[in-house]
Amino acid sequence: MKSKYSIGILGATGAVGQRFIQLLENHPWFEVTWLAASDRSSGKPYAEACKWRLGTPLPERIARMTVSPAEPEGAPKIIFAALDAAIAREMEPKFADAGCAVVSNSSAYRMAANVPLVIPEINADHLHLIEEQPSRRDSGGYMVTNPNCSTIGLVMALKPIEERFGIEQIFAATMQAVSGAGYLGVPSMDILGNVIPYIASEEEKMEAETLKLLGRLEGHTVTPLSAKVTAHCNRVAVEDGHTESVSIKLKRPARREEILAAWAEFRPLAGQDLPTAPDQPIEWTPQPDRPQPRLDRNRGNGMAVTVGRLRPCGVLDWKFTVLSHNTIRGAAGAAILNAELLASLGKLELVGAAAAHA
Amino acid sequence: MKSKYSIGILGATGAVGQRFIQLLENHPWFEVTWLAASDRSSGKPYAEACKWRLGTPLPERIARMTVSPAEPEGAPKIIFAALDAAIAREMEPKFADAGCAVVSNSSAYRMAANVPLVIPEINADHLHLIEEQPSRRDSGGYMVTNPNCSTIGLVMALKPIEERFGIEQIFAATMQAVSGAGYLGVPSMDILGNVIPYIASEEEKMEAETLKLLGRLEGHTVTPLSAKVTAHCNRVAVEDGHTESVSIKLKRPARREEILAAWAEFRPLAGQDLPTAPDQPIEWTPQPDRPQPRLDRNRGNGMAVTVGRLRPCGVLDWKFTVLSHNTIRGAAGAAILNAELLASLGKLELVGAAAAHA
Amino acid sequence: MKSKYSIGILGATGAVGQRFIQLLENHPWFEVTWLAASDRSSGKPYAEACKWRLGTPLPERIARMTVSPAEPEGAPKIIFAALDAAIAREMEPKFADAGCAVVSNSSAYRMAANVPLVIPEINADHLHLIEEQPSRRDSGGYMVTNPNCSTIGLVMALKPIEERFGIEQIFAATMQAVSGAGYLGVPSMDILGNVIPYIASEEEKMEAETLKLLGRLEGHTVTPLSAKVTAHCNRVAVEDGHTESVSIKLKRPARREEILAAWAEFRPLAGQDLPTAPDQPIEWTPQPDRPQPRLDRNRGNGMAVTVGRLRPCGVLDWKFTVLSHNTIRGAAGAAILNAELLASLGKLELVGAAAAHA
Amino acid sequence: MKSKYSIGILGATGAVGQRFIQLLENHPWFEVTWLAASDRSSGKPYAEACKWRLGTPLPERIARMTVSPAEPEGAPKIIFAALDAAIAREMEPKFADAGCAVVSNSSAYRMAANVPLVIPEINADHLHLIEEQPSRRDSGGYMVTNPNCSTIGLVMALKPIEERFGIEQIFAATMQAVSGAGYLGVPSMDILGNVIPYIASEEEKMEAETLKLLGRLEGHTVTPLSAKVTAHCNRVAVEDGHTESVSIKLKRPARREEILAAWAEFRPLAGQDLPTAPDQPIEWTPQPDRPQPRLDRNRGNGMAVTVGRLRPCGVLDWKFTVLSHNTIRGAAGAAILNAELLASLGKLELVGAAAAHA
Repeated sequence: MKSKYSIGILGATGAVGQRFIQLLENHPWFEVTWLAASDRSSGKPYAEACKWRLGTPLPERIARMTVSPAEPEGAPKIIFAALDAAIAREMEPKFADAGCAVVSNSSAYRMAANVPLVIPEINADHLHLIEEQPSRRDSGGYMVTNPNCSTIGLVMALKPIEERFGIEQIFAATMQAVSGAGYLGVPSMDILGNVIPYIASEEEKMEAETLKLLGRLEGHTVTPLSAKVTAHCNRVAVEDGHTESVSIKLKRPARREEILAAWAEFRPLAGQDLPTAPDQPIEWTPQPDRPQPRLDRNRGNGMAVTVGRLRPCGVLDWKFTVLSHNTIRGAAGAAILNAELLASLGKLELVGAAAAHA
Repeated sequence: MKSKYSIGILGATGAVGQRFIQLLENHPWFEVTWLAASDRSSGKPYAEACKWRLGTPLPERIARMTVSPAEPEGAPKIIFAALDAAIAREMEPKFADAGCAVVSNSSAYRMAANVPLVIPEINADHLHLIEEQPSRRDSGGYMVTNPNCSTIGLVMALKPIEERFGIEQIFAATMQAVSGAGYLGVPSMDILGNVIPYIASEEEKMEAETLKLLGRLEGHTVTPLSAKVTAHCNRVAVEDGHTESVSIKLKRPARREEILAAWAEFRPLAGQDLPTAPDQPIEWTPQPDRPQPRLDRNRGNGMAVTVGRLRPCGVLDWKFTVLSHNTIRGAAGAAILNAELLASLGKLELVGAAAAHA
Repeated sequence: MKSKYSIGILGATGAVGQRFIQLLENHPWFEVTWLAASDRSSGKPYAEACKWRLGTPLPERIARMTVSPAEPEGAPKIIFAALDAAIAREMEPKFADAGCAVVSNSSAYRMAANVPLVIPEINADHLHLIEEQPSRRDSGGYMVTNPNCSTIGLVMALKPIEERFGIEQIFAATMQAVSGAGYLGVPSMDILGNVIPYIASEEEKMEAETLKLLGRLEGHTVTPLSAKVTAHCNRVAVEDGHTESVSIKLKRPARREEILAAWAEFRPLAGQDLPTAPDQPIEWTPQPDRPQPRLDRNRGNGMAVTVGRLRPCGVLDWKFTVLSHNTIRGAAGAAILNAELLASLGKLELVGAAAAHA
Repeated sequence: MKSKYSIGILGATGAVGQRFIQLLENHPWFEVTWLAASDRSSGKPYAEACKWRLGTPLPERIARMTVSPAEPEGAPKIIFAALDAAIAREMEPKFADAGCAVVSNSSAYRMAANVPLVIPEINADHLHLIEEQPSRRDSGGYMVTNPNCSTIGLVMALKPIEERFGIEQIFAATMQAVSGAGYLGVPSMDILGNVIPYIASEEEKMEAETLKLLGRLEGHTVTPLSAKVTAHCNRVAVEDGHTESVSIKLKRPARREEILAAWAEFRPLAGQDLPTAPDQPIEWTPQPDRPQPRLDRNRGNGMAVTVGRLRPCGVLDWKFTVLSHNTIRGAAGAAILNAELLASLGKLELVGAAAAHA
């Protein structure tokens, strides 16, 4: 793999867009060559268009790049999209129709029947859905999505258990970080010394996405997992890292050590050398008071999910706590890992109409 | 009721002890005449022994009172106890044996078979258990307890539903304020920008106390409610106010309006004129993002419990959010309301050996 | 004073507008009869137009009031204005020209030569400037302003010292609460676990206003205090209450007890019975680690200013800490106290053109 | 430099001790071979003795090391000391007398006439003071200290200005992170939504240390800088990173660009290849609202100091904001850099009595 893939970022100035830039700096396979944002930013140097909010410096090369209009013309053929759902709904198909691989973090098309909703460790085979997309036949382009930031930690923790014991019921109560709402998403007057027991549409997303991700690809479609699921979503005064209290009912009984073993042995990407994939995607914390967002969110460079406090549940079978970094594993890192998987499967060798200079 | 009852406070310098003082200032029935704390504080003026941490001023009269040793000699016969469990285990029986009514906020004896665990709105009849205590026959003294701060909001929200529809399963995930752990309980380095998914023994207390409170007094004992219950207890960066995500399974089906009506009509203390009882013990918030600790914890002077977000649960039947002020309704206010109930029942007219000056 | 003054609020849905409503509920002299806000809110019931964010309930009567357009027609003749500066610049003169007394919290006209910038305890005599306003002659209407939330605590602490010893140099570094910026003013991602060492235009306002407030009315104009002043303004993760580190250089030497006495004896409104004026406008805290926003901001119902930590300064003469509640003493309460002063001086008995129904 | 220096850590389980371990992992010159803590921890594996609180994993090798008693016997000859002042006062001379180089973060001996208080970029020549210590002659051992966490950022920002223009007066108001007080130092109930305008002894340390650091070594002693200095120290709800509002009066006038140049060109360690020294020790932020602790504390791996907001001061000459990471540049990193400087000067080639196995 001599030369790198050219990468474009849609929504490059937002919180997730910034994470894309941060995580792609020095990426061995991908190189950011194109940045797009709203009309307001278009034509400006990125450093000027963007209020950089991360604790690592904005790379010099990126700072000087000019923000492009959000149009497929001139864009590279691999696009990371970090758009609000309403804008994504309109714009992502345009890029797919123009021959781009759109690797999206938006919720707009996650539940569409012919759009794969993928976590590489969980359901890489669902990627076959891209072949069901009309744009794939017409221009080679397609859309792939990753789940909501609150879904991803949960599903990672559930998958190894589901494989071995089956899952019938899932209860999750979240305590979500403010960064999940974007830079302006949560006013400080709402969250200082407070809890907001509501995030618009979040519970519905979390419930539906979980079942699709754990579902089975059958022919041209994914049959969701047949399980009951309920989510309570709360916002707390945490910068990064979503913590979740989870209870589950299994199909077949499992002992504590068996669940711990399922997590420890869950390494479905081992040997695939995807640069962003953590060695140990699920890390177990034996301490009674972990995982905690400040201490555990950066495990595996923010791509590992941490589980702890496994204990019997008085209502269902087992209960535990799961934590994941919401803007890395739960957003930008998730999309990048999806793109790495696509690259390793040869799905990024596109010959698209619009992607001339890539 | 011409003259006021003389009140003593055990553990007067701690966080709950301070709340007792704050809430009893200008109380129409009770007057604090005796303050006790650890040996370290004994003999000092209260203002010097205590690091007052509340946002209202320390009353002048209290500031000048001398802290007494924590011994029944010289103590009044009504004692509010705000002690750590280990100390309470030893000390509370001493005061009961000496003829005092010990109205305790400690967990030490909550689950003892002959000690009532009471919320006046929920299970006032359980107070009959005091007649099962040996001290009651010997000296007239007895112990009464109120529940854990995380239990009390939950049980308030459940009781009206249990009465009308029966409850079979209870799931609760808490987001608890730091004040619940006492002044030194949570280091700032543990909670700033963080969640601690663990509070020692809290889940066990919450599960057991909930069933005892909703249980039935039968002869000389309380039979706990026969329901499954599970709790996930978490600490968040909130000063005061515990928020809980709750799901429940009912025995008999209930429509949304029926549950709302059960809450709205739940006024079991109406007409009893207990000074600390809120007019509307359960307040409903129709807004989608409420209740919130900062905005709702002070309803009913901190004694009302707020419920919101009632919606169907994908696993059990219904889910909702409940909020209560953990150091008022969940601690000092709970004990004061218990004492008011005891007064109204004539149970404070003690003639105890040690309670000479009361 | 049989019937109450009818009061209108401009900018009624914002953070300061809500405080006006909260503080005016049950006010003995004033009654809110008219609420105005932006076009978006106009015509809606207040409860619907406003996202009520205070910890006390929105009064029922207010909740049902219809929001009026922000025009003088139909408005009462006494207007509390809580508008952004840009809007205030346009709108406040319209109301003054229409015969209203505009009691403003905005910065738009604070430094105008013929507009009084007043704290009743400090410079009530500056109110004479209203007679310099053209609208006063034409319609009877006028504008009066109160200072910036960061200025007011500082000036209260300085005034008694200035009177007795003179002040030559003032150094203030602030740690300001987020509520000072309004509901959407500070994104949580900016302030959780963080300090923002900048508030746009705040230092300039604080420096200029301090000197005007401590200045002398001479004929038709105010000569600012001749002193050097510098401000460093910072935003911190506090909900309410501005804390300031202050150093001062005096004209004449003062001993510690003399400064404490100056503060203790500073009661310029004693005997005037203004309902919102605190008995003790400057409260001293002897504890070494006070004042603190959470513990001291509500002294005097949020209208007292708290000082502590008076000690020698290695560069100037003395240094100390001052704290004030930024949305009560620093905003809505300040305007209400100004209006009470105007009422007591007979300046609210307006006969203005537009103020028909007042 | 083939083999690494053996390093011991006194106070290894505390907050600064943990930082030492984190920063020394993979250090090219130093290797931790000995850990000591209080009697309570002695004899236990480090992982068990220590509640690891950092966001990077505890290194496996360290986790398994046994905690030694805090005695010179068996200790290596280079000791990083992270002890409370009272304990340090007793213990550090013991290790120096036994022939160790004690590189201390404690305040105990910082102001002692024969103990160097050093920041390598500022006053490396002060290290000559170790030759004035009796232990140096007797056993070869000595003590070297680094300044208080609040001093270090200030002095770094002042030094280049002092060199070029002279400084006569210094005003600093700090907003300090909770980690500066150690793990249990600040209860969450004190700091959530709050400011504590007091840190015991901090202002005195900051004032005295600043003048010693900027002082001149003359013969056997350091003459402190002859300047006036005053500090206001405040604690805020920040995890890591001290922010300071600073005003200064210069001896000779300086233009804005001259000060910026002084900071930019300040690279006194260039070419010395000390592993922990940042390339650019003072980084300037042109944005109006920077530096901020969350965004800027990790510059230069936590060893760079960030300055911003340089503007004229209404009382002195210039004012600006400075930020530094309090447990890296302000504590553990400071000591490590001091040790690197000592190594480069050949001062770690000790032949001490107790340091047998080093």
